Parts: sequence; structure tokens; C-alpha cells
Amino acid sequence: MTDNRYQRGLKKIQEIHGEAGKKVIESMEAICPDLARFILEFPFAEIYTRPGLDTKTRQLITIAALTTLGSAPTQLKAHIRGALNVGCTEEEIKEVILQTTVYAGFPAANNAMIVAGEIFKEKK
Amino acid sequence: MTDNRYQRGLKKIQEIHGEAGKKVIESMEAICPDLARFILEFPFAEIYTRPGLDTKTRQLITIAALTTLGSAPTQLKAHIRGALNVGCTEEEIKEVILQTTVYAGFPAANNAMIVAGEIFKEKK
Amino acid sequence: MTDNRYQRGLKKIQEIHGEAGKKVIESMEAICPDLARFILEFPFAEIYTRPGLDTKTRQLITIAALTTLGSAPTQLKAHIRGALNVGCTEEEIKEVILQTTVYAGFPAANNAMIVAGEIFKEKK
Amino acid sequence: MTDNRYQRGLKKIQEIHGEAGKKVIESMEAICPDLARFILEFPFAEIYTRPGLDTKTRQLITIAALTTLGSAPTQLKAHIRGALNVGCTEEEIKEVILQTTVYAGFPAANNAMIVAGEIFKEKK
Amino acid sequence: MTDNRYQRGLKKIQEIHGEAGKKVIESMEAICPDLARFILEFPFAEIYTRPGLDTKTRQLITIAALTTLGSAPTQLKAHIRGALNVGCTEEEIKEVILQTTVYAGFPAANNAMIVAGEIFKEKK
Amino acid sequence: MTDNRYQRGLKKIQEIHGEAGKKVIESMEAICPDLARFILEFPFAEIYTRPGLDTKTRQLITIAALTTLGSAPTQLKAHIRGALNVGCTEEEIKEVILQTTVYAGFPAANNAMIVAGEIFKEKK
Repeated sequence: MTDNRYQRGLKKIQEIHGEAGKKVIESMEAICPDLARFILEFPFAEIYTRPGLDTKTRQLITIAALTTLGSAPTQLKAHIRGALNVGCTEEEIKEVILQTTVYAGFPAANNAMIVAGEIFKEKK
Repeated sequence: MTDNRYQRGLKKIQEIHGEAGKKVIESMEAICPDLARFILEFPFAEIYTRPGLDTKTRQLITIAALTTLGSAPTQLKAHIRGALNVGCTEEEIKEVILQTTVYAGFPAANNAMIVAGEIFKEKK
Repeated sequence: MTDNRYQRGLKKIQEIHGEAGKKVIESMEAICPDLARFILEFPFAEIYTRPGLDTKTRQLITIAALTTLGSAPTQLKAHIRGALNVGCTEEEIKEVILQTTVYAGFPAANNAMIVAGEIFKEKK
Repeated sequence: MTDNRYQRGLKKIQEIHGEAGKKVIESMEAICPDLARFILEFPFAEIYTRPGLDTKTRQLITIAALTTLGSAPTQLKAHIRGALNVGCTEEEIKEVILQTTVYAGFPAANNAMIVAGEIFKEKK
Repeated sequence: MTDNRYQRGLKKIQEIHGEAGKKVIESMEAICPDLARFILEFPFAEIYTRPGLDTKTRQLITIAALTTLGSAPTQLKAHIRGALNVGCTEEEIKEVILQTTVYAGFPAANNAMIVAGEIFKEKK
Repeated sequence: MTDNRYQRGLKKIQEIHGEAGKKVIESMEAICPDLARFILEFPFAEIYTRPGLDTKTRQLITIAALTTLGSAPTQLKAHIRGALNVGCTEEEIKEVILQTTVYAGFPAANNAMIVAGEIFKEKK
């Protein structure tokens, strides 16, 4: 059922999230292998590999979307780590979250900034 | 009550949205002058003028946030126009919306892409 | 199946929304009579008749909730009219919407203020 | 870039939405061909073709999700039509929307029921 | 203040959620007895007892709505347990969550699947 | 970069939230000083100091907005404490949350009521 999209996705998730990305997939495979496969085959193989935006900008876009959602702090944490992995600066990540106050309100942005603060701290 | 933040905001909204931005403010001034003032003084004077991200990236961030919200098509339309004004390409805008399918779902992204399609058409 | 909650709800919806409230119920009765009944029996008979908050404050609470939701402009319009009917001032309604910028973001508040502006205009 | 997922998706969208589904895809192809392709390849080819739930139940699930979102009336309309096409009754569709009052609130359910009412009317 | 709707609701919540449902109500009665009463009288007495959809389908509808909301993991957990209690299979529950990726995005579905995984594990 | 709005905001946050408010600001200053500043300068200095609504009503408005959002329990907790600090009764807070069932659904209101219950308990 898997094809080279699966492999492309696996390569991309490791490029962005390192070993942690692989572990997330393995952990989901134990619950629902098809969701694990879809995560690799659609977001990672089809979206994150597209040429139209560079990898750094894609991570900032994702941080904006997850801050706006407000209800996915685990994914936000993973993508802030991913953003740092692919070369985004702490400053850029903070700017995205600050800008999101305008669209998603202060509590959503405030909670995202606290998540960011925890990650920046563990890197030091 | 206004200070130079107001003027900075007015300059910034015109830089991004042109005459349309000024009209939005005038139209809000007829309903609630304080909201018109806050729009200039907070998002435009305090956020969009910050140095940490370039103006193009800021517009892409905003398109991601508004696509995720899903309930502000008027603002999305304005910011897609704004994105084109500050030099984003149609391709980059489409990439942001495509990526948002992952976080906000297909209907939100689909509706945003239709809004984008209308704007790209009127530019031709 | 109906009892005096239905009658209490009908009385309350007319107190807040006048003839318009009755029409909304009649129009829903043509589609789904049970939803029409639930609207009267739960929100209007059970919630809006409770003594713990005065009718004016309840309308402001509802405007805050609907502005935050962002996706129910028809109900927002009805409840802004309802707020004016039960004695809220235009000023108070604007203050609620202004305050909601903080929690739901500027686009949600901006769109709610435009709805409010239309209603204030038709009253003049 | 397309494979047999594309064809499977095209077949499935026509099974659920008839000619209207094909038109939605053609119309999106004029704006962003990759989003048109993703709509066929992921939701329609990968999700709607899965054996674990019958087609009727899948449409009811989608109506629940779209009613809860509240900000995608166009997609809700399409999927209520789709639900009728695959054999759901008007009664079943109304029950799903009624039940969603509990989770998404009355305005979201009320607006969904109005959309349903319009479709039921045009079928008569 | 209570009538036979209260008793009907109590019976229904125990049918779906067993002893856990009764405990949730008792725990809410200690905080706000009227909300405890409304939970029994409206969702459980008025909605879940309706004949138009079978109990299993109603639980799947609720899982779709709660996965889409994304911000009520406690209720999602309760209703996944409830779904198993009334005869839904693990497979059906996973299918509903998989389908919701399309409408609410991957993070919402992913988080719901993790909740489901925890419940399936404790059953073994 | 700060002016007297900053001082006004600091005074206001302490009036509503006491020492806890000051600590939240200090803690955010360690992560992103500009967000700490914006929180004081916009919500607290510009919104909460406005004359059009009394401080008690403003807290109830905020509780309605945060209950509707559903994804900011930390801020909800702070503002329920703030509401009690400025003279709202437990009864009024419960009424706001009860009313929000109608607009944001039962899970959102139920979760907010549990948060309220925890705070009421610690006050005793």
C-alpha cells in the first residue's frame, strides 16, 4: 500500500524533526498505522517537499497556523523545535507569534509564546 | 489621544494596502473611531513595522492565520491583495494556502484558495 | 410534547427580539420543528429567564460570545438588535466588541463592529 | 504526477456529489491544479473509499464536522446534497444537526439547519 | 424543578457512560447543580433519546464533533468510552477520526487518535 | 520605548489580578519583553481602563469570550480570579458560563465551569 511518497515523507520528517519525528510516527503506528502513513504521505511528502517556499518559511507558516488554532500545543512544540532545526532564529519565531496576537487574540499568542519559551530554554 | 503611533500605522497600512487601507480606516471611523485608531496603533504601528521579519514574510504569516481562522474572508481578501502589493508572488500565496490544508483542514484552505483565485483574476 | 417551558421561551424571545424573534421561530418550524422548540425551551426558557444576571448584561454576554465565535453574523445581528431593545446603549455594545479584540483577534471584532454599525444606522 | 489515486478520487467524488463534484474540481483546477489534485487524492481517494464505515455514515460524519466548524457553509451544502445522493434521509441529516447543538452551540446548528432546509426545498 | 426529563437523562447517561456518567453529574452537582441538570435534561434526555439515529451512530457523530472542536479532550475520552460501551468497534472509531483530518486538519485528528489509543489500551 | 500607557497597564493589571498579574508579566518578560509590554499597553492600558463599561461587567465579558474560545484555560482561570477580585459574585460567574452553553456548546461551558469550581473551592 505504501509507495515512494512514504519514503519521501519519512526523509522529510527526519529533516525537519530529526529522531523525534521518527518516534512520533512509530508511536502513531502502534495506534493507527494508516494515520501514521497519511501523515508521512500527505503533509510531509506532498506539502513540505514542494519547491514554492523555502523550508524555513514553511515552518513559520506552520507556527502561525498552530498558534491560531490554539488547541494543538504538542504539534506547536514539535514545529518550533523543527523551525530551529531548519535554521529559523528564536527572533523569527517570536515575531510570528507576536503577529498572531492580531488575528487569533492575546491568549492564543500568549500560550504559544510560553511554549516557545520552554523550548528556547531547553536549548541553552 | 493619538500620537505618532497613529501616523506610523497610517503610513504602514497605506504601504501594504494602498488607498483601500485608508478607506477601511475611514469607514471604521464612521462606526467606532477608537477601533479605527486601535487598528492603526496596534497591528499596523506596533506589529507590521517591527524589523524581525520582512514585509513579504509578514503577509504570508497573516494569510496562514486568516486561512486557519476561516471566518474572516474580507480580511483575507485584503491581505492577499496586500501580499501582492508588497511583492509576494501568486505562487507563494498559493503555497501558504496549500500548506494550511494540513492544519486547518480542506474546507478552510479551499475557501481561501477561491478568494485568492478571485483576486488573481481581477489583476489580469 | 411542549409544556410551559415552550410558552415561557416564546414570551422571552418576544421580549428580547420582538416580532423578529417570533418570525425566526416560525421560519425554523417549517424546516425542523424540534429545533424551533429546543431554541425556545432551552436558551430562551431556561437560560434567559434566570434571575442571576439582568437582561441587559445577558445581551452583552451573548454579543461577546458571538463575536468570539466569528461565524454566526446573523445571530450577532439579531442579538445586537435585541440588546438595543432591552435598553443597552450603542456605546455599551461597542465596548463589548472592542474588548473582544483582545480575546478573539482584530478580524472577528472588526467584522462584529461592521454588523453593529449597520444596525445602528438603520435605527436612525 | 497523478496516478490511480487521482482516478479513484474522481470516481468517488462523482459517486457522492455527481456532476457538481466534477465541476468543483474543474473550477479549482483553473485556480490551483495541485489543490484540485489533493482534494481527489486525499479525501476522496484515501478516506471516502475506505471500507470501515459505509458511505451513508461517512456523509453524516462529515455533516457533523462541517456543522461544528461553522465557517464552511458551501462545503456543508455540497455534503448535505451528497448525503441525499448516497441514500441518507432528510430525517437522518436533521438528527445529526440537532445533535451538534450540544457540541458546537445553537448558532452553528441553526445555520446548518437553514442550509439543510434550502436543499430539502429545492429537491421538492 | 426537575421532571421526568431529568430521570430520562439520568437513565440515558448511564446507558452510554455507565457509572462514569453518573460520577460526572455528581461532580458537577457540587459546583453548579443547574448545569448538571441541563446536561441531563437537554443532551441526554432530549437529544440522545431521539429515535431518528441509532445509539451507535450518535456516538460516532459526537466523536466527529468533538474531534473537530479540538479543545475538549476530556469529553472526547468519555464519548470514545461511551462508543465502545454501546457497541461501536475500535475500527469504526478510528475511521471517524481519520475522516476528520479532512475537515479539522491533522493536529486535531492526531490528538484525538492519541486519546483513542489510550482508551483502547486500557481495555486490553 | 515604553510610555505612560505601560504604567497605566501595570496599574490596571494589578487592580484586577493583584500580585498574580505582576508575576505573569515578569514571567513573560523573561521570554519576550515586547509581548509583556503589549499585554500591558493594549488590553490593560487601552481596553480595561475605558469608561463605557464598569470593571465587573468587563470581567464577565472576558469570561464569556474565554469560555467560547475553549482553548485558553489558564487565562480563564486568571480572569475568574480577577472577576472575584473586582467584586463579581460566584453566582454571576456561573450565570455567564451557563449562558455560554448556548453559543459555544456544552463541552466548552462544562470545562469552564470545572475551572470556576476549582477557584471557588480554593477561596474557601
